[in-house]
Amino acid sequence: MDEAFRDTASALVAISRSFCVRGWALGTSGNFSAVLSRDPLRLAITPSGADKGELNAEGILTIGQELSETHGLNEKPSAEALLHIKVVVERGAGAVFHTHSVWSTILSSVHAPAGGVMIEGFEMLKGLKGVESHEHREWLPIIENSQNMPALAESLSQILRKHPDSHGFLLKQHGLYTWGENLAEAKRHVEIFEFLLETLGRLRVVEPKM
Amino acid sequence: MDEAFRDTASALVAISRSFCVRGWALGTSGNFSAVLSRDPLRLAITPSGADKGELNAEGILTIGQELSETHGLNEKPSAEALLHIKVVVERGAGAVFHTHSVWSTILSSVHAPAGGVMIEGFEMLKGLKGVESHEHREWLPIIENSQNMPALAESLSQILRKHPDSHGFLLKQHGLYTWGENLAEAKRHVEIFEFLLETLGRLRVVEPKM
Amino acid sequence: MDEAFRDTASALVAISRSFCVRGWALGTSGNFSAVLSRDPLRLAITPSGADKGELNAEGILTIGQELSETHGLNEKPSAEALLHIKVVVERGAGAVFHTHSVWSTILSSVHAPAGGVMIEGFEMLKGLKGVESHEHREWLPIIENSQNMPALAESLSQILRKHPDSHGFLLKQHGLYTWGENLAEAKRHVEIFEFLLETLGRLRVVEPKM
Amino acid sequence: MDEAFRDTASALVAISRSFCVRGWALGTSGNFSAVLSRDPLRLAITPSGADKGELNAEGILTIGQELSETHGLNEKPSAEALLHIKVVVERGAGAVFHTHSVWSTILSSVHAPAGGVMIEGFEMLKGLKGVESHEHREWLPIIENSQNMPALAESLSQILRKHPDSHGFLLKQHGLYTWGENLAEAKRHVEIFEFLLETLGRLRVVEPKM
Repeated sequence: MDEAFRDTASALVAISRSFCVRGWALGTSGNFSAVLSRDPLRLAITPSGADKGELNAEGILTIGQELSETHGLNEKPSAEALLHIKVVVERGAGAVFHTHSVWSTILSSVHAPAGGVMIEGFEMLKGLKGVESHEHREWLPIIENSQNMPALAESLSQILRKHPDSHGFLLKQHGLYTWGENLAEAKRHVEIFEFLLETLGRLRVVEPKM
Repeated sequence: MDEAFRDTASALVAISRSFCVRGWALGTSGNFSAVLSRDPLRLAITPSGADKGELNAEGILTIGQELSETHGLNEKPSAEALLHIKVVVERGAGAVFHTHSVWSTILSSVHAPAGGVMIEGFEMLKGLKGVESHEHREWLPIIENSQNMPALAESLSQILRKHPDSHGFLLKQHGLYTWGENLAEAKRHVEIFEFLLETLGRLRVVEPKM
Repeated sequence: MDEAFRDTASALVAISRSFCVRGWALGTSGNFSAVLSRDPLRLAITPSGADKGELNAEGILTIGQELSETHGLNEKPSAEALLHIKVVVERGAGAVFHTHSVWSTILSSVHAPAGGVMIEGFEMLKGLKGVESHEHREWLPIIENSQNMPALAESLSQILRKHPDSHGFLLKQHGLYTWGENLAEAKRHVEIFEFLLETLGRLRVVEPKM
Repeated sequence: MDEAFRDTASALVAISRSFCVRGWALGTSGNFSAVLSRDPLRLAITPSGADKGELNAEGILTIGQELSETHGLNEKPSAEALLHIKVVVERGAGAVFHTHSVWSTILSSVHAPAGGVMIEGFEMLKGLKGVESHEHREWLPIIENSQNMPALAESLSQILRKHPDSHGFLLKQHGLYTWGENLAEAKRHVEIFEFLLETLGRLRVVEPKM
């Protein structure tokens, strides 16, 4: 597994840095994981509290399904590791990315009373896995934020089952989670949602009646 | 043709990356082509679904007028290759670029009822080929988006003939197409239109009455 | 001390450059310091009037508590060195950073009548030292700007004592000060406050009633 | 002069590229010059129609006061060379920079009826040469744009004499001109004005009553 781990860790680092440059993972926010094996389940994941623009492959940890067996130079995985595992188990994802941008924070706040953001009509939606047309309607659920990780993970499970076609979700005043079969797909989904959330946010200002 | 192709492919890659850095080709969106020969017609074009920030020259394809003869490591050219060919044939363009920015998406949405965006009075317009004064009036038509490529290509032909002086067009909620005699001119036109669309979009907010 | 100084100077330079790239230290604005020793007190600090994107480690100065003993190629430390010393003494900070972004300038202007900005409910707050929940309420005081440095330093002392839990402050129409135990924590605090101020500023426009 | 010219040309290129990265010189817009000698007057200047992100020192031209004697690989200096010469002669500037940003274009349009933009109260103003306090009032005149260069140069002379303390001016719907004793000061002035114009533009939206 060592070489596979090193490749995955290097790829996670490169992606973390690219998101940091775009301002989507400032102040040590954001966390990123990829599945190393499914049986037993093991994930490579960014450590807690790391500067995503300064991350090195040596800083990447591995975790198991119960978080009991964590390996790495820094023994503490992201506090939100449980959410990553939930998404991997519920959706069969191969990579789970959480960004923390200004626009995802704003939209997660403004749309919270509606429980989610409906996105439709944009060509960019076609980049989401399985979407064939800009006429697709994507529901991006918003989950109330919480510091109680087991409770938050339980809310997440319910939301993922209630909206089986959603490609991501927002945590209120917190940020975006999305995932993919592999690292490239998860990265693509992050860029698509961040683009769409910025577009929707700016559209509210440019054309308030829309 | 091999060396000419390699130079063109390298230039396409460099331009794709520069647009990706600016956020104009996120999530594998955007596609970029250049004419290699006119008789028979052959274009170098970016592949479908590629991360424009990670593209290498080896990933660039070549296509013919009928899309029947495609060559390259990845056998699938951009889904919008037909639109590139249409622009090359109708306008005699040497390079055709399609970006997918937040502001072009917003303007293509807000101005859709008018069928296009009128841009006038800006010095930046002088960078468009053949334009001698900021007093120039540029009509940037907006075409309804569609997943039916032959139908969309037909709409495009009509628009190009109806507006023979236009230097580009928008696809609604999708993005910008522009072109030039060569790669440098097409890149310049992208930067000019993206600048002008952002300026118009922000002006609507700064000074709603304008 | 020489090697420790060189490491600190290099780190200050790298951080200065990263903030300059983000537009938080344009036009030679911004200044950054780190404690080298506490008894006697000595700080490494960026020089007055330097382009933060062009800074080299050789340009970093050292100052003492009274500003009487300054060493470095450029004999003039930042005009605001006194504020840095005040923060180090009052808060026990190991690094003090002052950025000068568009959004901190805007918020420091808009919220000046209230004497500060209340920030609450955002997950990003958890990155501030000692904050355990997004439900934290952070008061970011705003101090009237002045060119009289001793008077400004005195205003600052009063504000720091009145708000002993604050992690930073704004100077009106001027910018942000924050600090940390070390360089990494101070950098994290800058990114967190800049993110939160941009978010609050944009939220006022996206949802004026909030 | 050769070595001095090479150093100046390299510095102009580095500055051009840094402005291009920030989006202040897209689409071949913007032009930048520096005085090589005063008697006879000779300037190094960026060529007409060059991509400012791709510029090399070999592309920099030299011009004399009458534009009759131009040297360089590309025989055509910027169309606005006459304005650069006017600023050098009227203000004794050592470097003249013209950027073309979204915000300078917007402010030059919105404030045109007032004939200029009054900027006061911002600490950033202190970066302008000779300004000692944020309480400084800077008048940035706006000149009607024109393609008649001799006429525009004459308008400029009048404005420069009418506002002898101004550190720059705007051309309406066109962009910013500023200058300095040397390259570093002119760069600093560009960054300061671009920062202040963005801040004023955003403030109009965040707080419409201000």
